[in-house]
Amino acid sequence: MSSKKLIGVDLGGTTIKFAILTENGEVQQKWAFRTNILDDGQHIVPSIVESINHHIDLYKMSRDQFVGIGIGTPGTVNLHKGTVTGAFNLNWKTSQPIIEQLETGTGLKAAVDNDANVAALGERWKGAGNNGNEVVFVTLGTGVGGGVISNGQLVHGINGAGGEIGHMIVQPGGYLCTCGNHGCLEQYAAATGVVHLATDAAEQYAGDSKLKAMIDDGQEITSKIVFDLAEKEDDFLANEVVDKVAHYLGLACANISNILNPEFVVIGGGVSAAGKFLLDRVNTSFQEYAFATVRDSTSLKLAELGNDAGVIGAASLAQRFE
Amino acid sequence: MSSKKLIGVDLGGTTIKFAILTENGEVQQKWAFRTNILDDGQHIVPSIVESINHHIDLYKMSRDQFVGIGIGTPGTVNLHKGTVTGAFNLNWKTSQPIIEQLETGTGLKAAVDNDANVAALGERWKGAGNNGNEVVFVTLGTGVGGGVISNGQLVHGINGAGGEIGHMIVQPGGYLCTCGNHGCLEQYAAATGVVHLATDAAEQYAGDSKLKAMIDDGQEITSKIVFDLAEKEDDFLANEVVDKVAHYLGLACANISNILNPEFVVIGGGVSAAGKFLLDRVNTSFQEYAFATVRDSTSLKLAELGNDAGVIGAASLAQRFE
Repeated sequence: MSSKKLIGVDLGGTTIKFAILTENGEVQQKWAFRTNILDDGQHIVPSIVESINHHIDLYKMSRDQFVGIGIGTPGTVNLHKGTVTGAFNLNWKTSQPIIEQLETGTGLKAAVDNDANVAALGERWKGAGNNGNEVVFVTLGTGVGGGVISNGQLVHGINGAGGEIGHMIVQPGGYLCTCGNHGCLEQYAAATGVVHLATDAAEQYAGDSKLKAMIDDGQEITSKIVFDLAEKEDDFLANEVVDKVAHYLGLACANISNILNPEFVVIGGGVSAAGKFLLDRVNTSFQEYAFATVRDSTSLKLAELGNDAGVIGAASLAQRFE
Repeated sequence: MSSKKLIGVDLGGTTIKFAILTENGEVQQKWAFRTNILDDGQHIVPSIVESINHHIDLYKMSRDQFVGIGIGTPGTVNLHKGTVTGAFNLNWKTSQPIIEQLETGTGLKAAVDNDANVAALGERWKGAGNNGNEVVFVTLGTGVGGGVISNGQLVHGINGAGGEIGHMIVQPGGYLCTCGNHGCLEQYAAATGVVHLATDAAEQYAGDSKLKAMIDDGQEITSKIVFDLAEKEDDFLANEVVDKVAHYLGLACANISNILNPEFVVIGGGVSAAGKFLLDRVNTSFQEYAFATVRDSTSLKLAELGNDAGVIGAASLAQRFE
């Protein structure tokens, strides 16, 4: 078979993940190493270049067997220049010419996009998105990220802020967000948001609840604890919190869908580990707020690729070089 | 000059508007007549065919001088089949093969989309959208409609409900909408929504206000009266109502923009006749709710084409036949 390969790179503040894929998106090799953010992050791209070159040699492959490299990165990506700015968790203080560095260093063509967009592309291509042309991806982690695919293309918007779903306002005047606004979805559906809601709820509740007892006792609460208490111990307060999270997430998914009518809204990230228990409640809220035509045609789904969404989606960026 | 012409048709429940445009979007001829919705609307498409044929003869033109016809229509459009369903204000009770009828009747190629999408295309091409690739159009009339253009293409979504901006939920549990949901933007920013807000506000207000006096006196209130009293007479209650409308509209525009980061959100329709007075207040609310990057790159603008947006945008549908 003369089919060529794609290389996908998922650059994060903690680890850098790599994969070699067939043109059909089948992962053939995976590896990863810890991100070295020392010295203003200047070792990052050279280490990626070196690792790609090393693995091409290791697998006894040649450059003409590859279509190219795709990479997902934190920060704001300038698609035209192939540069990245504002990637604070990489310690990058200035604009990084990431494409130029990758192409010069590896001798392969390279393409870049931001990490949430790349994860959206991954879930769309090989995950819950069923390779459809109308897919929205929402990822619930330490923050809430997102990617929007419409007419088969990522929506970047005029300044790259397309897909900033975590900063949709779901509660005007609500919790203060790190972005400076009040009431962003991120403050109600990311891991810290769930804990914030739990702490506030505990303060106003006098009844019987293990969650309340833990909080009052000063124990450290995580979103996982809240979901587990709700699902497995039917804790009243924990269920109240899950209902609130589901309300805000369902409202956001409905409003996204009332604007875009995607085929799927795919929910991923750490908080979504609560799985069907969370999805069912989000769906109840979604059904309440979605326009009738949207309710009948847009579905909420759990993400399917887990941590592989990034490398797979990144690799798909290289398809443009086919 | 051998430049060809486009024909645009804006089919509405009251009138049918026509225009002949150059390929550059310059309107050269316009005409209109009242919509005859009798007999299940069966006269509508034949009357359009006849009028187009008549005007081609009238202007002593030949069919090969035209690229084709574009038409905007109420209802749900099936783009692949070229059919229209659910256009209740046209009395159409069954699916209408509008493209087939137009093409057979005129001998010209024809394309169709819904009226809000077509108006969005018009404002994007020759109006406030500055021919950009990232433009959202919101029209405030008896209802609130919308059209979304991203990556240069209309967003239809999986079932044609893309752009249903009027049914974004801006107040969960709020006013009951004709769609069956509660708290849709339409109930706060369309003409009837403004009046609803005014009536409710008057009930809860005991101070001095001409608006309250009119409502208590049983006089008929319109959105224009509310805006005029706020702007020209600095009526306290009317200003409260305008602030509420602006809050909801700014919130919706911000959430749309946090998802799509368009270059422009263009606000048109009858309610937007309040112009800069309304826009300034909407902008204040938009600035409060927009994500920082969005605030810096997305602008709200008033529509510029008025009633011509429909025929111009419809004509642009025919550009695909060039």
